[in-house]
Amino acid sequence: MFSEKIVSNLSNSSWIRQMFEEGVRLSEKYGADKVYDYSLGNPYAEPPVEVIESLKKHVLGNEKGLHKYMNNAGYPEAREKIAQSLKKESNLELCAKNVVMTVGAAGGLNVVLKALLNPLEEVIVFAPYFVEYNSYVDNNGGKIVIVPPDTSTFEPDLEAFEKSITIKTKAIIINNPNNPTGVVYSEETIKNIEKIITKKEEEYGITIFVISDQPYCEIVYDNIKIPSLLSIFKNAIIVNSFSKSLGLAGERIGYIAASSRIEDVEILMTALAYCNRTLGFVNAPGLFQMVVGDTINIKIDNSGYEKRRNYLYEKLTNLGFECVKPQGAFYLFPKALIDDDIAFVKAAVKYNLLLVPGSGFGCPGYFRMSYCVKFDMIENSIAAFEKLVEEFK
Amino acid sequence: MFSEKIVSNLSNSSWIRQMFEEGVRLSEKYGADKVYDYSLGNPYAEPPVEVIESLKKHVLGNEKGLHKYMNNAGYPEAREKIAQSLKKESNLELCAKNVVMTVGAAGGLNVVLKALLNPLEEVIVFAPYFVEYNSYVDNNGGKIVIVPPDTSTFEPDLEAFEKSITIKTKAIIINNPNNPTGVVYSEETIKNIEKIITKKEEEYGITIFVISDQPYCEIVYDNIKIPSLLSIFKNAIIVNSFSKSLGLAGERIGYIAASSRIEDVEILMTALAYCNRTLGFVNAPGLFQMVVGDTINIKIDNSGYEKRRNYLYEKLTNLGFECVKPQGAFYLFPKALIDDDIAFVKAAVKYNLLLVPGSGFGCPGYFRMSYCVKFDMIENSIAAFEKLVEEFK
Repeated sequence: MFSEKIVSNLSNSSWIRQMFEEGVRLSEKYGADKVYDYSLGNPYAEPPVEVIESLKKHVLGNEKGLHKYMNNAGYPEAREKIAQSLKKESNLELCAKNVVMTVGAAGGLNVVLKALLNPLEEVIVFAPYFVEYNSYVDNNGGKIVIVPPDTSTFEPDLEAFEKSITIKTKAIIINNPNNPTGVVYSEETIKNIEKIITKKEEEYGITIFVISDQPYCEIVYDNIKIPSLLSIFKNAIIVNSFSKSLGLAGERIGYIAASSRIEDVEILMTALAYCNRTLGFVNAPGLFQMVVGDTINIKIDNSGYEKRRNYLYEKLTNLGFECVKPQGAFYLFPKALIDDDIAFVKAAVKYNLLLVPGSGFGCPGYFRMSYCVKFDMIENSIAAFEKLVEEFK
Repeated sequence: MFSEKIVSNLSNSSWIRQMFEEGVRLSEKYGADKVYDYSLGNPYAEPPVEVIESLKKHVLGNEKGLHKYMNNAGYPEAREKIAQSLKKESNLELCAKNVVMTVGAAGGLNVVLKALLNPLEEVIVFAPYFVEYNSYVDNNGGKIVIVPPDTSTFEPDLEAFEKSITIKTKAIIINNPNNPTGVVYSEETIKNIEKIITKKEEEYGITIFVISDQPYCEIVYDNIKIPSLLSIFKNAIIVNSFSKSLGLAGERIGYIAASSRIEDVEILMTALAYCNRTLGFVNAPGLFQMVVGDTINIKIDNSGYEKRRNYLYEKLTNLGFECVKPQGAFYLFPKALIDDDIAFVKAAVKYNLLLVPGSGFGCPGYFRMSYCVKFDMIENSIAAFEKLVEEFK
């Protein structure tokens, strides 16, 4: 009756969402305070006060025309502010014309892939990776190519990367800081990726776009600096959202910014606005375009996330879990206590612990914990982890 | 460098948007009050006071969690209110589970088509039709089949419709009131479509879904009543938006509602939520889900549109234009004064008149006017129409 492919996908649907829904079920049964839900990357905090103030200003101001259609690329004011912010970071000549406002980063990625891909062109991702990339590439007629993980550091395996490039390679997606590991790829790694790409572009006579999916770029610890991909790659396309940094996940607001160094970037920008329209997004939600324009430069306070990372990392490693210490995002990616991460995660549900199996990110044997949750939930969950460790001793 | 298909589409891009952008250009040159822009279906009015009050209530209330991720189908409160409203109209058993909140109707249509279509299955539309349907069907791997227009009434040509159904037919799209003609298909026509579908379903042993794209269903005149497709078709799927009725086009808020009579409707609903996520919409914007839930039952005042319809229809027919009198939406679709509608529309630009050629809607020889504009613009444009008529006398 329906799309066979979609119906068959439903049964293998996202582990993240399955666990989130398991959490809702368990909460109804045992009470929310008895369920330790580490499944969803849904920021615990409300948006910063500056965001709420901007929202009030626009709603109370009742500006004429605010809720109408605008250009498919979005309001020029918001686009210009984003361009200025990226210009400062990258020293590139960027302006409103380099930016398209999008329905979150998920919308932005689909728009970019639609504008770039010819049938069966390849998009390379580094495992572990956000599993929805599979859908996004498939939606737009491409083929995903997965570089296996280097589980010792969770930095990209550069040798495997070089081998994965073919004459059909159209783009790579870099997700830094990484979901699900929280690892921040170093500047050295990024520069080595650039060298490999340049070499292979020359070898095959092709252009490889670097799509930077960077919704976590504002969430970093230990005074670490994220390398600017606009500075490093000639053909960089930034896809970002305010879901995580401004706590606006449900409002679906993000953007695409394409480097002024891309050849024929004007055609690309027209294609992006066109795809924004014809994929059915039409434009990013108008009111929140204004809000993110107002608040693009505010200082994000990550101390709450850092406290959670420190506490959980210490507790879990003390309990015997192996884990790379993350320097960004709000995820931990420890090794499961048995090889079968799915069985491990299912066992954890017994203790009302909701984790996501690494298999859902192309990296079996591990599990993801999203620690953007209330601190007392984390504290209360430690006893459940103790029982889980006990079971697998 | 980029997608060849997309780049080639850019040159044949939407006439509506081309004309809208021509309008921006002319406005900068001559001043906005000297340009008569009938190109875009962007409601002239601000949202009703109830919408603004609801928006203020939610923003000032600063409700916890309002801006976070929710279930991909949307907030249960908003979905339930929409279900109740449709239940009253259709007498079907509908509840929140039958509704998925979407990023406008454009987003909703893409989600429905993704969930329904297997490769190269056919979707039938009646010309003249909203040209973006071509993209939506193509995005999701289907093939569009166009039933030629009956220009005497602009109701669907039922004989041609019956012939267009094949064993590959998966769905038809009904857009009532129609964009671009403003015609409201009669209950008799709709019931005849139902008979043809039932006959062909039996003949071929297939299921044909009826997708009702109905963003204009609240904008009707002359006390006319739109037939409820949920009541008439077993396999009805409603796709609606609040862009037009509540003046929220830029906020991208709409919904899908599937009939409780559809076999395996629970699977369909899961597939719709899944496609909402994996196409990159993720969920409809959260704040506006709440706002449309609050205001779903408010009375829409169409007297402003009716005044414009009456004035323009009278003036244009007096000037000699042939035109079916529309009973809904905010469009007129008169016959061009020469066969070549594109040349006609280009000639009109000389008088700062922005029209959209019927060719952009699968109906050459006509042009669309969107009269959701300021009344004095309409009054001031009549002199320009007089000059245009003079040129083609």
